[in-house]
Amino acid sequence: MTAARPIWLVNGEVSTVNPADRGLAYGDGLFETMAAQDGRIRWLDLHMQRLRDGCARLAIAPVNHDAVRGEILRHCPNSGRGVMKLIITRGTGSRGYRIPQPQNPTRILGISNWPEYPSGHYTEGVRMASLTLRLGRNPALAGIKHLCRLEQVLAQQELSALDADEGVLMDELGLVVSGIACNLFAAHRGRLLTPSLSHSGVKGVMRRAVMEAAQSLGTGCETRQLTQDDLANADELFVTNAVFGIWPVRQLDQRDYRLGGLTRRFMDHFGYGQA
Amino acid sequence: MTAARPIWLVNGEVSTVNPADRGLAYGDGLFETMAAQDGRIRWLDLHMQRLRDGCARLAIAPVNHDAVRGEILRHCPNSGRGVMKLIITRGTGSRGYRIPQPQNPTRILGISNWPEYPSGHYTEGVRMASLTLRLGRNPALAGIKHLCRLEQVLAQQELSALDADEGVLMDELGLVVSGIACNLFAAHRGRLLTPSLSHSGVKGVMRRAVMEAAQSLGTGCETRQLTQDDLANADELFVTNAVFGIWPVRQLDQRDYRLGGLTRRFMDHFGYGQA
Repeated sequence: MTAARPIWLVNGEVSTVNPADRGLAYGDGLFETMAAQDGRIRWLDLHMQRLRDGCARLAIAPVNHDAVRGEILRHCPNSGRGVMKLIITRGTGSRGYRIPQPQNPTRILGISNWPEYPSGHYTEGVRMASLTLRLGRNPALAGIKHLCRLEQVLAQQELSALDADEGVLMDELGLVVSGIACNLFAAHRGRLLTPSLSHSGVKGVMRRAVMEAAQSLGTGCETRQLTQDDLANADELFVTNAVFGIWPVRQLDQRDYRLGGLTRRFMDHFGYGQA
Repeated sequence: MTAARPIWLVNGEVSTVNPADRGLAYGDGLFETMAAQDGRIRWLDLHMQRLRDGCARLAIAPVNHDAVRGEILRHCPNSGRGVMKLIITRGTGSRGYRIPQPQNPTRILGISNWPEYPSGHYTEGVRMASLTLRLGRNPALAGIKHLCRLEQVLAQQELSALDADEGVLMDELGLVVSGIACNLFAAHRGRLLTPSLSHSGVKGVMRRAVMEAAQSLGTGCETRQLTQDDLANADELFVTNAVFGIWPVRQLDQRDYRLGGLTRRFMDHFGYGQA
């Protein structure tokens, strides 16, 4: 594609969105944010799997995954890097929360330029700050990458006033959930730990890739409740998302962390931080 | 307006929505649903006040309230009834949760036909069922009529499988919050009670009108934590929203309620259920 980015396709056409779309009215939909490079999408299978799972949990009519996958690949930048964002909403409906029958989901695909992350984020790590905003707990929505993201908007606003690159979010009980736009892993005596996300947060595609690799890399990965003390007592911390991959954490609040061997092993395994 | 409804205006024009709008991307916005009749909007001052409060809490750039008010009244049906829905989003932005500077909020106005509610909802009351879905608790978002409404979509889906007109929603601690699209009041020995909504729920315009009228009607209105037992022990229950006004509750789960004098007093005061 040579047109100026971002480019937006709505149901396959360069177009706009119906004001009656339930994605806008109620956040009634899902999204995937994907790293594109040289005509390929990293983690495409995992993105499609999560999309399928999300549709099932929200009872959104299943999209034609082959068609969606084909559309993504057709519009993927042939050379260089970019970010592709896919939004699937439940489509338009009449007034009210009732789910329309039949559903005609809306498919929105955006192609944006690659964000130029500071290279130090990979080589030295990011500085994080614990945020005061608490995430609500709701098992019915936990884990899903749905469109209701006001908590993240408010968290990003809080972070903007702090001298840090990312924020650590806790839930109403004070349990650690994630970063604002990333998942969080802690290394403790050679073991990898990550929050279970049974009550809050998004189950990231890169989180899943790390959890799967943890078996072959011999660290294992335990998903469980994590407290702020667990983070303070960790040997290493790192954060993940499907676009930037893995960033070590070099500071959280008052504590400094080293870029340790376990984090390095995962970054090397996936090839992050090489460029 | 004589065009077929619904009619949608985006920033004053019959138009559509930019796919990069943050209302769609993140639920980053607010809405008001208003009852229109014969060129007038019921509770317009309270709607505008809540919109102003919501913008302040979410740090959405203040909209020009005189202009918005003027636009609403200009498109209000001259005769008969209708429902007007105003959506204010934070506008478009580049990728990511960070709030754009400057903000250019998007204004979306929809005009729909009046829903034909069963007259028995006013004269006999509605049947309610307690839902199993729990609302997350988040003081930062509680009370605001924001666009993140997936909990209500899932609640409405749960209700659809039950033999009831509306659902009672509890929060994660089991405290009563509201109906799905309405607020809830309980009468107990001549006193009016309603959930405080400090951690979940929407502070409805009709809820506020009832709370203000409760002073002049001599019942007072106590906002506090309410349990399911409080509802089971209530003498009367009624639900409110700005479109239908007030409906008595004639059944909640296994218990029947009478349409009592206190509910009747509020309905008469506002003129609901006369037509």
